[in-house]
Amino acid sequence: MSSLLEQEIFSQPEVIARLIDRELKHIQQIVTQLPQFKYVLIAARGSSDHAALYATYLWAALAGYPIALATPSLHTLYKASARMDEALVVGISQSGQSPDIIAVLEEGKRQGRPTLAITNDATSPLATMADHVVELHVGLERSVAATKTYTAQLAVMAMFAASWNGDKELIAELQKLPEALQKTLQGAQEIARRAERYRYMDRCVVVGRGYNYATSFELALKLKELTYVMATAYSSADFRHGPIATVDTGLPAILIMPTGATSEDMFDLVKELQQRNAELLIISDAQQALEQAQTPLPLLARAPEWLSPIVSIIPGQLLALHLAAYKGLNLDSPRGLHKVTRTF
Amino acid sequence: MSSLLEQEIFSQPEVIARLIDRELKHIQQIVTQLPQFKYVLIAARGSSDHAALYATYLWAALAGYPIALATPSLHTLYKASARMDEALVVGISQSGQSPDIIAVLEEGKRQGRPTLAITNDATSPLATMADHVVELHVGLERSVAATKTYTAQLAVMAMFAASWNGDKELIAELQKLPEALQKTLQGAQEIARRAERYRYMDRCVVVGRGYNYATSFELALKLKELTYVMATAYSSADFRHGPIATVDTGLPAILIMPTGATSEDMFDLVKELQQRNAELLIISDAQQALEQAQTPLPLLARAPEWLSPIVSIIPGQLLALHLAAYKGLNLDSPRGLHKVTRTF
Repeated sequence: MSSLLEQEIFSQPEVIARLIDRELKHIQQIVTQLPQFKYVLIAARGSSDHAALYATYLWAALAGYPIALATPSLHTLYKASARMDEALVVGISQSGQSPDIIAVLEEGKRQGRPTLAITNDATSPLATMADHVVELHVGLERSVAATKTYTAQLAVMAMFAASWNGDKELIAELQKLPEALQKTLQGAQEIARRAERYRYMDRCVVVGRGYNYATSFELALKLKELTYVMATAYSSADFRHGPIATVDTGLPAILIMPTGATSEDMFDLVKELQQRNAELLIISDAQQALEQAQTPLPLLARAPEWLSPIVSIIPGQLLALHLAAYKGLNLDSPRGLHKVTRTF
Repeated sequence: MSSLLEQEIFSQPEVIARLIDRELKHIQQIVTQLPQFKYVLIAARGSSDHAALYATYLWAALAGYPIALATPSLHTLYKASARMDEALVVGISQSGQSPDIIAVLEEGKRQGRPTLAITNDATSPLATMADHVVELHVGLERSVAATKTYTAQLAVMAMFAASWNGDKELIAELQKLPEALQKTLQGAQEIARRAERYRYMDRCVVVGRGYNYATSFELALKLKELTYVMATAYSSADFRHGPIATVDTGLPAILIMPTGATSEDMFDLVKELQQRNAELLIISDAQQALEQAQTPLPLLARAPEWLSPIVSIIPGQLLALHLAAYKGLNLDSPRGLHKVTRTF
């Protein structure tokens, strides 16, 4: 494999297996140790914010907790702070370095609330100041575009959801994730071949809903970072509230539609997009869905819907990787990006 | 004026004056009547969701309330519901018809929580079932693209913030809004002239931060709905986390930068974008900011920063209107859109 990015994408089954092995019991312990809280306040940026978006659905559905996404600039720019009574305060950051994420957790601490850091660096400032730390154990991520840290963050969110919920079946489903990831990566060669068609794509939309709303944002970000394509993410619901007007003949629309509660709504959207002569790329485990696409991006393993975002981002990562290669771009250091972004 | 859209844009000073006149005292009453709550859960879609985004900053900064944005599909698709203990549950919908927004308020009621509807139709299902209703009084909005209902929703959010805060100075500032809107509309002719340059623009980015994060989303949506331009909204902080890689020579970047706490950060972004040879369109009251732009979009009135989103969207609405006209598009009924979107 020629790039760090490709190596990191292919390391994900092993990374997730190690993470579950090392952190599941720890997370179950944290869950029993946390004081009572009524909702969760999450501070995150970039890919980490997409992990927070996944939790917005997952923690509500499986654990009953509503999620508020913190607005870090409230603390850093406006010097204001909301009351955090009854909140569990969570910061997600690969590097654990971003001053604005740290500021939210510091405010939580000042108000006597429990704090949780999810990070790849247990010695980072974020980890050092939090009450509880979950490490990602992904090793150094050397490519600028996050791949293995993103799926690892999702897996941490999933482990918390399963631990709060308590259903042992969920834990059993979690344990099968590495195998599902391995199978999904077997589609890589076909995706590599199909990506060439999009060599001159300069814009596209990415649509997912529910648990996979996060996947649409993460895939759009990968396309922007790696291929410089103007990719815009939507939920299918919001998409119909206006942005669908931008769809014209040939506009590429990437649909994230693993089998589940959102399928019917996504099939309706497929029809609407076909009427507008859009170019469809469909990520799905269902043959019926894949048949509707100009470019099917098959999920070779069917994960339970609550875990599907961890699997369904994989064809998207591969698409972005190979498209960047066809465009002749630098896979590991996209123009003008840095691995650690310090936002004030 | 040839279009309903233009008429509705120009009606905003009167609409906001009437709204403040009819609802400010009512909102102050609601604030005293509400039982205790620790955070606010808001359900909204489309432009209404951008009003919720404004509240995310404003209600936290001026009233100390954290905001959780509801995920309506949790209720409608996954048949799940989060616990809403300690929440004030708010639904924002122009029509008051959307089943998924109604479902969130119904769940709030079932859990015994206080509910608030913000809508243009006091006889709508949403209004009928909520404990408290604030009407927008904007009259029938006949253009498909929301303009006056959006600024009216923001003004309602601002009235709640001022009422919770209690500072009389804020109320005095609110009363001056209609005049500021009137002055801002005086820039219409210049914007009409300048819009022609973008006749062949097919994509752009829109960046704002803090209170004006909402403005960037709303302006991007207007551009998508009215001009079919692929416009993508960002906060300046998130923009640096990857999407800035998409910026190349000539890419139009519309920056929302009224004077305030976000100015320094936005000026830094101006420099970064100039290094990448982007085409800058800048909405600002500050000469120093406007001078940096290929296309200055001046705010002819300086509103206090907390109210600036209500004013700073105006040049954006006018830009979208005139650009749609130069592109020869239907201003009042964009292709394939409907005024009322019923999401399940």
